[in-house]
Amino acid sequence: MDFASDNAAGASRPILEALLAINDEFCPAYGADRHSAAAERALSALFERDVASFLVATGTGANALALGAVTPPWGAVFCHEHAHIIDDECGAPEMFSGGAKLVGIAGAIGKITPAALRDTLARFPRGLVKQVQPATLSLSQATECGTIYSCAEIAELASIAHAAGLSVHMDGARFANSVVALGCTPAEMTWKAGIDALSFGATKNGALACEAAIFFDRQRAADFAYQRKRGGHTLSKGRFLGVQMCAYLKDGHWLDLARHANASAARLEAGLRRVPGVRIPWPRQVNELFVILPKRADAALKAAGARYYDWGARSLSPDKAPRRDEVFVRLIASFATKEADIDRFVAIVAESAFPA
Amino acid sequence: MDFASDNAAGASRPILEALLAINDEFCPAYGADRHSAAAERALSALFERDVASFLVATGTGANALALGAVTPPWGAVFCHEHAHIIDDECGAPEMFSGGAKLVGIAGAIGKITPAALRDTLARFPRGLVKQVQPATLSLSQATECGTIYSCAEIAELASIAHAAGLSVHMDGARFANSVVALGCTPAEMTWKAGIDALSFGATKNGALACEAAIFFDRQRAADFAYQRKRGGHTLSKGRFLGVQMCAYLKDGHWLDLARHANASAARLEAGLRRVPGVRIPWPRQVNELFVILPKRADAALKAAGARYYDWGARSLSPDKAPRRDEVFVRLIASFATKEADIDRFVAIVAESAFPA
Amino acid sequence: MDFASDNAAGASRPILEALLAINDEFCPAYGADRHSAAAERALSALFERDVASFLVATGTGANALALGAVTPPWGAVFCHEHAHIIDDECGAPEMFSGGAKLVGIAGAIGKITPAALRDTLARFPRGLVKQVQPATLSLSQATECGTIYSCAEIAELASIAHAAGLSVHMDGARFANSVVALGCTPAEMTWKAGIDALSFGATKNGALACEAAIFFDRQRAADFAYQRKRGGHTLSKGRFLGVQMCAYLKDGHWLDLARHANASAARLEAGLRRVPGVRIPWPRQVNELFVILPKRADAALKAAGARYYDWGARSLSPDKAPRRDEVFVRLIASFATKEADIDRFVAIVAESAFPA
Amino acid sequence: MDFASDNAAGASRPILEALLAINDEFCPAYGADRHSAAAERALSALFERDVASFLVATGTGANALALGAVTPPWGAVFCHEHAHIIDDECGAPEMFSGGAKLVGIAGAIGKITPAALRDTLARFPRGLVKQVQPATLSLSQATECGTIYSCAEIAELASIAHAAGLSVHMDGARFANSVVALGCTPAEMTWKAGIDALSFGATKNGALACEAAIFFDRQRAADFAYQRKRGGHTLSKGRFLGVQMCAYLKDGHWLDLARHANASAARLEAGLRRVPGVRIPWPRQVNELFVILPKRADAALKAAGARYYDWGARSLSPDKAPRRDEVFVRLIASFATKEADIDRFVAIVAESAFPA
Repeated sequence: MDFASDNAAGASRPILEALLAINDEFCPAYGADRHSAAAERALSALFERDVASFLVATGTGANALALGAVTPPWGAVFCHEHAHIIDDECGAPEMFSGGAKLVGIAGAIGKITPAALRDTLARFPRGLVKQVQPATLSLSQATECGTIYSCAEIAELASIAHAAGLSVHMDGARFANSVVALGCTPAEMTWKAGIDALSFGATKNGALACEAAIFFDRQRAADFAYQRKRGGHTLSKGRFLGVQMCAYLKDGHWLDLARHANASAARLEAGLRRVPGVRIPWPRQVNELFVILPKRADAALKAAGARYYDWGARSLSPDKAPRRDEVFVRLIASFATKEADIDRFVAIVAESAFPA
Repeated sequence: MDFASDNAAGASRPILEALLAINDEFCPAYGADRHSAAAERALSALFERDVASFLVATGTGANALALGAVTPPWGAVFCHEHAHIIDDECGAPEMFSGGAKLVGIAGAIGKITPAALRDTLARFPRGLVKQVQPATLSLSQATECGTIYSCAEIAELASIAHAAGLSVHMDGARFANSVVALGCTPAEMTWKAGIDALSFGATKNGALACEAAIFFDRQRAADFAYQRKRGGHTLSKGRFLGVQMCAYLKDGHWLDLARHANASAARLEAGLRRVPGVRIPWPRQVNELFVILPKRADAALKAAGARYYDWGARSLSPDKAPRRDEVFVRLIASFATKEADIDRFVAIVAESAFPA
Repeated sequence: MDFASDNAAGASRPILEALLAINDEFCPAYGADRHSAAAERALSALFERDVASFLVATGTGANALALGAVTPPWGAVFCHEHAHIIDDECGAPEMFSGGAKLVGIAGAIGKITPAALRDTLARFPRGLVKQVQPATLSLSQATECGTIYSCAEIAELASIAHAAGLSVHMDGARFANSVVALGCTPAEMTWKAGIDALSFGATKNGALACEAAIFFDRQRAADFAYQRKRGGHTLSKGRFLGVQMCAYLKDGHWLDLARHANASAARLEAGLRRVPGVRIPWPRQVNELFVILPKRADAALKAAGARYYDWGARSLSPDKAPRRDEVFVRLIASFATKEADIDRFVAIVAESAFPA
Repeated sequence: MDFASDNAAGASRPILEALLAINDEFCPAYGADRHSAAAERALSALFERDVASFLVATGTGANALALGAVTPPWGAVFCHEHAHIIDDECGAPEMFSGGAKLVGIAGAIGKITPAALRDTLARFPRGLVKQVQPATLSLSQATECGTIYSCAEIAELASIAHAAGLSVHMDGARFANSVVALGCTPAEMTWKAGIDALSFGATKNGALACEAAIFFDRQRAADFAYQRKRGGHTLSKGRFLGVQMCAYLKDGHWLDLARHANASAARLEAGLRRVPGVRIPWPRQVNELFVILPKRADAALKAAGARYYDWGARSLSPDKAPRRDEVFVRLIASFATKEADIDRFVAIVAESAFPA
């Protein structure tokens, strides 16, 4: 019963098997191999457009490199105040941008509103020398609250950002889960809505270690190969990344994986909603479920070996704050989540509510 | 016939199988898993000492992070003038140290001599404010010329460096090949000879993507976890690195792989030495062979699909420079090199020398 | 009638005359001269303690260098959300710390409260690798609202910070005005209250261009000479800074200058308080006065050539926000402010309130 | 008898008097004052072209900021192997460029030859991802050996650099002395010869602390105001710099100062050439004279209180190396050098050669 992270699982079988299948090949190093090239073509096909894509092994690497490519050292990156890039990457975006400033924007359930973005931009007038210059808007899709922006919402925020001369970045660590939830195409959720640079995650959704930094206008990526190299993010056996990405995208495998993860979280949600005393502060949208549990249930789950994280109450509006006998937790399902684990989890919560 | 790079091969079977064997486990993310812990224990056992070790996916990452951990932004890193860190990492050491200066030291066949080190240090007196401060000596084992330092040579250079207040780093991208060539222990070639920080490579020698930054005194690594994280080099599925390293070290597998690579290069050397007109400017020591080939042989090899790199003549003393009808090339063998490919390579060279 | 900035004035006569007096001397370059040494001694005498002091020409230089000396690249600097270092230095602290994160803390009239500091620190637990590490508390004395911390308030905040392992920095751009307002000694307002590093400003208070970065424990400044040099902040004719600082401190000149500035602002405050319709949202403490003026008065003043800045209403509590017919402005007096200008300013406001 | 540095002198009287003359003015802060604007106009007039110019207080600041403006973090700056920017600025160019690599080029008497530049560029092919990218050529005018490039030499080097896609920077710490020596115009020695960015020094030649970073194409300076600000190099009392530069340039004052300095060095050279046993390894061109003195003369001079620096013999060709009874020294004259001091210096040397 591991609902701690979508990083807790290993890799999907088809991805592992693809690695095995080509293991005996000799390939040119540092990404000059045919698998890396095939991955780049597959990503262009996926996005229905010629894209510049660069594979790396970590999500923080993809985010920090992508932000560094579109943000000067004296720039400001605007993001949600609880975004992964501002809270969970130990300053990587600052390092890769050469010292840019991340400016957090408050907003309910992890999302930035157009009004809040406009207010923040008004505080950073372009050309005011004493201040960092507005450079980049970064949207997390899905957000740290497991919520997602609709394509229209993305388009509105991107439009405000572009009008102010900013680039727009999407942290797509859970890109697949979001696409599945919205039922849209990758193109619709990105460049058609105004996204300029994307961290396209595969690791959480079934790869071993594979992410792509993607630019929808090649010009923005003119120096990216150097930036990736000096960041130490160019793998010597580049085929390792290329093969993963090809297998991930092949025949919609990535969508199948995400559908399973989202459906697992939905099953968990449905189950828990039926238990009195369990509160769900906002509806689940992807593969993450935020729940306020009775402490009794929490104790019973932990005793049974369930793994998940307590979550900071600051994501909750005050009226929904956990009471003394409650805890606020985050539950994440992945491509590897088993139905039996979900049902057992729900059963333990239900039993703790209605002890025999 | 791929002799271009030891990165051209895939992974060794035991390493791949180890990954498969534990793929269905759920593990804590970001290196808190049992495999990462086992790898750290295995490295301490290997070095006969409690070491602080940090796994990353790339050699440039390991080098730049390790150098950054022991070099302040206003420091100088002394290395051979053709070292990988100065020539082939696109400024990664500068980035991770916050702007330190790499100072190249000239020396035949890739090696720094004690005299050259002393001369260079004399130009960087400690406390002279207008200059960067002497901080780190970095030795490549093996060097870019495929040569190695004996343990006594390492000890002498490290002793000079320590006397001047420097830390000593070893770029061990080909650590295994060097240990095998010297017939010494990992401890003898590192901390017993004065090495403070080590980039311990596994990728070139059979891993998919796995290197370790190792510190023989934990104190030097006090902040390394943050440095790795903000560099984007902490893998979310940390078990991927831990399992590779465990399988690599298990039952001397790493030494078996390196022995094969070195022996392959030795067979290649022996074969080529028998062909008149082929010149070997300095003896092979590990898995790299530098050869001056007749252009006729070069053409025949390339026509047959052989892959290898032309090498810059600046590594050669003028009296050994290639003539007009010669080319200077680098041949690298790996754990995956096949005897048949070696013999075919030699045969093509021999045939081109003695055409039927 | 220039109340725009204390940087609007030139230099005090004694400082200029001191420069003239020694102009014909030949002095060693880069701060090795006798005047720089005398300044260092004078600062130690002033603070009743052996201090490490480093002269630079700008306040941003002093702040960024001092913060960089006590904050690692993966560190967090906690400061008021409107502090000069976070809002007005275009990312200089980020640059000189190698990419640290500045974390703003909300607080009325420019001040951080102990409760707010504790709440913020609780969000940055030491050792949580995914987050930047708590490193430094920076207090502005006086604040951007012209308010000051008492020595007891500084001591309480510094004590909380030290307990959490932080260094404490003071941005003393208006150090002299604050000392005069508190009636305390420089030692009491700094190291006796827990300050570790200080930006000691002289420029706003009568120097041409002279600030000092001061460390109360020499150990913290072990590398500062290199940091200053590589920041380009070591003046070649170092005597220029040394002479300014000596003249500034000689015979209490610096306190006389600040007394004049504070008294000028007090006279302005007293005059404006007597005019109906003028609102002063919080009491003046140093040489800065924040005033809500009727727009009629504002127009009359500007027509008469008065210079001052409109100020962002976000420093005001909502109940004190300017109405439609009002503007919120900042008025700064300096050592050079003339009584006649103050009185004329007040008269114009009064006349606009009671038109003939 | 101070021949240690042109930074040993104070300021020229007209510059000091200009500061005094406007001291009582109130001026807008941070360079928005009328004197800063006048300096910018004066520099455009001087260079017969609309230039973007930015005043700062230090030469290292001007160099590092200018290099940072034209060099990306993954770029290489090519300069003479003994250039001030590589040897004497403690890594400032690395800091302000975000980690670029300075590549030293060997060359006699401080100068880079076209052949050496071409050879070096050949080692840095554009687009080779593993290496830093060729970005900037920096020429010192005058060089560290007190030699100068003719306008034709500059044009040839700049042309090679431009053909390779580099920007060309001039470190003009002794710009005035060079212009006087060449008898050319500032325009001829810079943009007409292909210089893109210039550090225009005034401090060594009579200012207190004043340098300008100048760009001949405004586009290259698009972000310079932010770069200067975040480097802490924007003076709050900007008029201090503006007034110095205006007075420096007014009525050819700067040329008068440099003529005096050059003529003083010429008088010194002429005097010393007449003393047997004194060797001058290359002809003086500006205000710096390099001399091989008998140790007896050196001892007599130092006993008489003369100040100057011993100079590293590595600037000398082996056949001119000092013998055991000789020392190699650098003598610098400035705008403030007195004829009597020169003559006394020569007399002491002569007496030591021909003791009574």
